[in-house]
Amino acid sequence: MPPIAPETVLAQLRWRYATKKFDPTKKIPSDVWSVLEQTLVLSPSSTGLQPWKFVVVTDPGVRKKLQPAAYTQPQIVDASHLVVFCAKAPPTPADGERHVAHTAAVRGVTVESLEGFRKMVVGAASRPPEEGAAWAARQTYIALGVFLATAAMIGVDACPMEGFEPARFDEILGLPAKGVKSLALAAAGYRAADDKYATLAKVRFPVNEVIERV
Amino acid sequence: MPPIAPETVLAQLRWRYATKKFDPTKKIPSDVWSVLEQTLVLSPSSTGLQPWKFVVVTDPGVRKKLQPAAYTQPQIVDASHLVVFCAKAPPTPADGERHVAHTAAVRGVTVESLEGFRKMVVGAASRPPEEGAAWAARQTYIALGVFLATAAMIGVDACPMEGFEPARFDEILGLPAKGVKSLALAAAGYRAADDKYATLAKVRFPVNEVIERV
Repeated sequence: MPPIAPETVLAQLRWRYATKKFDPTKKIPSDVWSVLEQTLVLSPSSTGLQPWKFVVVTDPGVRKKLQPAAYTQPQIVDASHLVVFCAKAPPTPADGERHVAHTAAVRGVTVESLEGFRKMVVGAASRPPEEGAAWAARQTYIALGVFLATAAMIGVDACPMEGFEPARFDEILGLPAKGVKSLALAAAGYRAADDKYATLAKVRFPVNEVIERV
Repeated sequence: MPPIAPETVLAQLRWRYATKKFDPTKKIPSDVWSVLEQTLVLSPSSTGLQPWKFVVVTDPGVRKKLQPAAYTQPQIVDASHLVVFCAKAPPTPADGERHVAHTAAVRGVTVESLEGFRKMVVGAASRPPEEGAAWAARQTYIALGVFLATAAMIGVDACPMEGFEPARFDEILGLPAKGVKSLALAAAGYRAADDKYATLAKVRFPVNEVIERV
């Protein structure tokens, strides 16, 4: 018996949609939000380097300031929570070494015993900066996918958004000083009863166009 | 009442790990696999452009050919299914127009009524090729995140992998002729009873290092 019925997972993915109109009176309860934060923390990344940071904006004043930098979309202010998905600066070999040391400490083993892993991690952390930035961005999108999927599982609506000005977000949130850059947003909360997008048919390529079986 | 208890979702994300040793005798039942394919199809993408293709390799001969191009990792041949996550060539404005026409058809509305959406889609599909390729790659990683999360929900083990030679995979799978490029892999199946990685402590930054609250 699977822990969750596959049909339930599918039903929740069909239930989700990019919510355009949130009910501003409905807030995600703190215990539920805490689970969503944990799903971000638990997101997988290549060699476990976690080259990301998630800025959760609930302050209404800051949300108001961000809105014009996101083409005044109402989700920015109306959703219960706003997550700004950020990538860290490209990892350096020193970041890789720290990650290996952290791994050894968490697992109660010596760094020497992790030599194979160390080579892999330091390799992943030695890309040229531009390539490293693209890699960190892709990893951060894994977390975005995990977040959107798990929110749907627990009945939380979300709207992933690339329609914003990252440089303005970075400035408003003081991100350069934190060594991270905004890449994408997810507004999260509960759909307004009259969001007309909720009932529109999903537009997806047919399975046989998207999946190739070999 | 949420459709799935938040604690169950969290328990499944804690249960998952990058499975290094699969039980080669255990296959994912076809009805369960079909759900995982649907989660790929249902993955969200910016403006809905779905710039991806998922190559599902079950043929043992092809898996054997791919293995040396993935540093001979055993997951490549031992897992029940192997998904090659591919990005399409960067979208062009014509791709954008087709997507809008498809959306209008699915929703039974005129293309004219979707003018605002059309501008957004065609904008997203008009990036310079290099930027468009990076964008398509990031979208494909959303699908990777959704896949890893939903597999965990239904008790299917998976191993995301970047440790392979994309150019060799592309050649073996004939991907250039299909206009797509491999980016990442996910082996999926069931862990071997003696995979020592299954019981290792998870290594993650503490929540307060990863999440910044504003």
